[in-house]
Amino acid sequence: MATLKDVAQLAGVTVTTISRMLNNRANVSPKTRAKIEQAMQELDYQPNEIAQSLIKQKSNIIGLIVPSARNFFFSMVIDHVERYASLNGYKLLLCISDLELRKEKEYFNMLKGNKVAGVILASHTQNLEKHISLTQPLVTIDRTVSEEIPSVCADNYNGGRLAARHLLEKGCRSLAYISGSANIKMDANKRYIGFGDVCREQGVKGPVMVDASEQQFITMKYQNLIHELFQQHPDVDGIFASNDIIAAQILQYCAGAGIRVPEKLKVIGYDDIDLASLCTPQLTTIRQPVEAICKCAVEQVVRAAKGETVPDNVTFPVELVVRETT
Amino acid sequence: MATLKDVAQLAGVTVTTISRMLNNRANVSPKTRAKIEQAMQELDYQPNEIAQSLIKQKSNIIGLIVPSARNFFFSMVIDHVERYASLNGYKLLLCISDLELRKEKEYFNMLKGNKVAGVILASHTQNLEKHISLTQPLVTIDRTVSEEIPSVCADNYNGGRLAARHLLEKGCRSLAYISGSANIKMDANKRYIGFGDVCREQGVKGPVMVDASEQQFITMKYQNLIHELFQQHPDVDGIFASNDIIAAQILQYCAGAGIRVPEKLKVIGYDDIDLASLCTPQLTTIRQPVEAICKCAVEQVVRAAKGETVPDNVTFPVELVVRETT
Repeated sequence: MATLKDVAQLAGVTVTTISRMLNNRANVSPKTRAKIEQAMQELDYQPNEIAQSLIKQKSNIIGLIVPSARNFFFSMVIDHVERYASLNGYKLLLCISDLELRKEKEYFNMLKGNKVAGVILASHTQNLEKHISLTQPLVTIDRTVSEEIPSVCADNYNGGRLAARHLLEKGCRSLAYISGSANIKMDANKRYIGFGDVCREQGVKGPVMVDASEQQFITMKYQNLIHELFQQHPDVDGIFASNDIIAAQILQYCAGAGIRVPEKLKVIGYDDIDLASLCTPQLTTIRQPVEAICKCAVEQVVRAAKGETVPDNVTFPVELVVRETT
Repeated sequence: MATLKDVAQLAGVTVTTISRMLNNRANVSPKTRAKIEQAMQELDYQPNEIAQSLIKQKSNIIGLIVPSARNFFFSMVIDHVERYASLNGYKLLLCISDLELRKEKEYFNMLKGNKVAGVILASHTQNLEKHISLTQPLVTIDRTVSEEIPSVCADNYNGGRLAARHLLEKGCRSLAYISGSANIKMDANKRYIGFGDVCREQGVKGPVMVDASEQQFITMKYQNLIHELFQQHPDVDGIFASNDIIAAQILQYCAGAGIRVPEKLKVIGYDDIDLASLCTPQLTTIRQPVEAICKCAVEQVVRAAKGETVPDNVTFPVELVVRETT
C-alpha cells in the first residue's frame, strides 16, 4: 500500500504540505492540491482518517440532530447542511431524535465520543440544556437552548407580522393561528406573537390559537386538529399555519368540506418547502431562507472548531410569497 | 477522567463484559447492560470511539449515499435507514451525490478512509462500478450495480403491471408512462416493462413514454415534461408516473388546464410518499414498502460486516393504493 511519502515523492512536494491539505488548512494552492490529488489517485493512496482523527483528537465530522428526516422542512435542512459541510471538507453524521430527550442525550454522548468537530442542533426538548456536556462547538437552528449557545434563526416575529398584515389586507376579519411547533422554547413561537401584535394594532379581535402535539408534529398528521378548529370556529375566514404541512392539510379539509379557497377562506403557510408549490391551489406562504440559515450554521461550527469567535445569534429575514390561497 | 476499570468496579462486572457491550455483541444481558450504563453515567465515562475504531480497524458507522435528501422518497429512505442503523448500534454518515459520478467516487474514498462498517447505496451513475474499490460490505437499494453486489428492491415489474391493470379496468384506453428515473440501470425501469406487457396482453396500444432528465429528477421540476406530453398527446386518458412527485405536478397541470381528474384523466403515482395523501385530489399510487426495504438493507450490511453471508437479491412486494385520482 502506498504511503504518504510515496505520494509526496510523486507529486514533488513535502509530506508536510500533503498533511496540511488533508487537514483542510487553507494555505495549499489549487495547483499543488491538484498535483497531490493526481499522485494519490495514481498510487491509489487512502489516508487513514481514523488514525488522523485520533492524533488530532478531532474528526472532520459534523453532527446534525433533527427531529425527523422525513418532515419536508428538515429534509431541506439535512440536504443543505450536508452540501455545505461537504463543501467545507466535513462529513455529516445524521441523528434523528423524534423529539425524545433520551435520544437527544444519547446522540450527544455518541457525538462526544466520536470527537466530532461540532454539532448543529435542530431538535431539542425541554431540559436538554442540563444534559449537554459537549466540549465541541454547538450551534442551534431556529431555537434557543440557552444564552451561551449560538443560534441561527429567521425573523419569526416579522414572519408572523407579514402573515397577519397580508390576511387583513385581503379582507379577513376572523383569524386563526395553528402552531405545529409543540410547547417548547422554539424561536418559531415568535410567529404567533407577531401575528397577534398586528391584530391588536389594527383593532381586529385576537386570533384563535390551536397547538399541535409533538406526536402530530412527528407524524405530520394534523387532520384532527384542523377538524376541531372548524367545528369550534366555523366563522374563521383566514388561517395562518406555522408550517406548510399543516396548511396543505387545511386545503385538503376545505376540498372535502366544499369550502372554497381563497374565496371563502384564505390560508398562509410557513417555510416555503417544496410542498407549498406542489399543493392545489398553490400555497401562499412565508419563505424562510433555509439554505442561508444552513450555510451560516455550518460556517459557524467550522469557524468555532478552528477557535474563532462566532456571534451569539444570527437572524435572517423572511419573505411573503403570494400564490393562490390568499 | 473515569476509566473503563472504574466503571467495571462500580458496576461489579469485568472490563471484558463492558468491552463486549461497547462492541455491540449480543451476549450481554439487559440487566448487566443497565448496571454498566448506570455506572457510566455516575462516573460520566465517555468511551473514546475513535480509539476503539482504530483498534478494530472498523467503525460503527454505516455510510448512506443518496442523490438528494430533499427528494421526498429519499428523505423517507434516510429517515428509515438512520432509525434502523441506530437500533442496531450504528451511526449514519450521510452522503449526497446529486447523481454525479465525481461525488460518488469521492464519497466511496472517504467512506473507505473512515473504515465504515458498510455502505448502503441508493444513488449511482453509469460506470460507477469501475470506481468502487471498497473492501467493506455494500448493499444497493432499488438498483443493480453488478451481479456481485447485493441489492434490496421492490417488485418493480409487478408495480408496472398493477398500474396498467388498474387504469385499464377503470376504462382508460390511451395510456402514457412518465419516467423520472433517468437513463441508468435502475431496477425501477422494470415498471415500464410491466406496464407495457399488460397493455400488449390486453390488446391496448403501447403506452406513450417520456423520460425525465437527471436535472429534473434532482430539482423535482417536471412541469416542462408534463406540458410537452399534453401538447403532443392531448388524447391521453390515463397516466402512470414513476414517482408521486411527477404525479402531483400532473394534478397541478390539470387543475390549471381545466382537465378533471379522475373524470377525464386518471393518474397513478409510485412510491406512496407522504406527498401522495397530501395532494388534492389524493393520489392513487403503487406503494413501495420503503421501511421494510431500508430495514433489510441495514440488516444486510450489519450481517455482512460481521462476516455472515447475505443474499444477492431481496425483492419485496408492492401494493396498489386506490385514492381519488382513478
